[in-house]
Amino acid sequence: MGIRPEEKLQEMGVALPELPKPLGSYVPYVRTGNLIFISGMLPLVNGKLTAAGRAGDTVSLDEAVRAARTAAVNALAVLRYAVGSLDQVTRCVKNTGYVASAGNFTDQPKVINGASDLLFEVFGEAGRHARAAVGVHVLPMDSPVEIAFIFEVR
Amino acid sequence: MGIRPEEKLQEMGVALPELPKPLGSYVPYVRTGNLIFISGMLPLVNGKLTAAGRAGDTVSLDEAVRAARTAAVNALAVLRYAVGSLDQVTRCVKNTGYVASAGNFTDQPKVINGASDLLFEVFGEAGRHARAAVGVHVLPMDSPVEIAFIFEVR
Amino acid sequence: MGIRPEEKLQEMGVALPELPKPLGSYVPYVRTGNLIFISGMLPLVNGKLTAAGRAGDTVSLDEAVRAARTAAVNALAVLRYAVGSLDQVTRCVKNTGYVASAGNFTDQPKVINGASDLLFEVFGEAGRHARAAVGVHVLPMDSPVEIAFIFEVR
Repeated sequence: MGIRPEEKLQEMGVALPELPKPLGSYVPYVRTGNLIFISGMLPLVNGKLTAAGRAGDTVSLDEAVRAARTAAVNALAVLRYAVGSLDQVTRCVKNTGYVASAGNFTDQPKVINGASDLLFEVFGEAGRHARAAVGVHVLPMDSPVEIAFIFEVR
Repeated sequence: MGIRPEEKLQEMGVALPELPKPLGSYVPYVRTGNLIFISGMLPLVNGKLTAAGRAGDTVSLDEAVRAARTAAVNALAVLRYAVGSLDQVTRCVKNTGYVASAGNFTDQPKVINGASDLLFEVFGEAGRHARAAVGVHVLPMDSPVEIAFIFEVR
Repeated sequence: MGIRPEEKLQEMGVALPELPKPLGSYVPYVRTGNLIFISGMLPLVNGKLTAAGRAGDTVSLDEAVRAARTAAVNALAVLRYAVGSLDQVTRCVKNTGYVASAGNFTDQPKVINGASDLLFEVFGEAGRHARAAVGVHVLPMDSPVEIAFIFEVR
């Protein structure tokens, strides 16, 4: 166990933002049983994308990795709102990462590691998850990444 | 509670169609515990797509929105078949919406609202769901949208 | 019940490989309750893709179908590792198949049937699953297919 997830975030200098506002007629998360399904998260900071365009095109690998990390931070903000404290999280179950990609860009796994690494840093072994990373054509707002998550909670 | 989902559909003038026929060796839904996973639904009416091509290209935003709504109607047909009555539905959990998109089309959220709005109209608060909307390259039959759903039932 | 899944695989001449190595900081599967979420599987044999590129472009339909089948075999290897024996599998729940596709390639369902048919051959009725098949721009390692699975186990 060791350090608690929110202490870890603080130690990492990561402040969880306000709840990201959904871009349509849906909600940021739904709980069913012990599972929390989180909507596709974009790399928004104060309502603005950290980068726009396709990885391998106008967005560099580094920028895409950081965008994925930011999307994961936004997911943690939703998750904390959903269950009150990240201490309630028993497991990160699944991360589906969509990367807007140039036609010859095949490093989707490296990009989505930006999110996966953050979850492992914050939750330790409970942060390890199943994952799919795919390269899509274009994403809402011209975002370079969108990531949907499933978490298991107490 | 208020009005029941199938009365609401009637009031809206929406008739649920016959079960859409899967395009491959799979089934329209699987139940596990209290969850119903519904296969990717296309905007088929009597076996024909309501529109074909990419949003932002040969398919207008309006046509794409209506296509998403039709895909959601098809999902409700599957759901009713699965559990006998939409009264059994306790929550729409997740909607993953794939929009075949021109390279500069970034309004996937507006398109998938066609499905999300229908679910909210029919189920009220229980119709609000987590969602991911992404822009893909091309879809089966050249459909402009495909939407997979998860519902929670009694 | 009839024949057991692993006997069936043997009869089909399919040997389950070593666990595929994740391409990033995640794990091949996570169990939550009775569900096993399996990460996006690629058509890797001994660490090498069976084909590279897009279906309808450098990859033929036949090659793409076989790639999907190989991805499913890799998923079964993960699944057996996860639960000890395929006898523990009570249902294939969901298959989300991403097909790297040329802009005019719309046979994603035929491609993903390569995986769906295998599951039906191995598990019989319990192998039938809900499914989404979509055409994406590009996949990790330039793979023609990536498939994520959910199974229900005892």
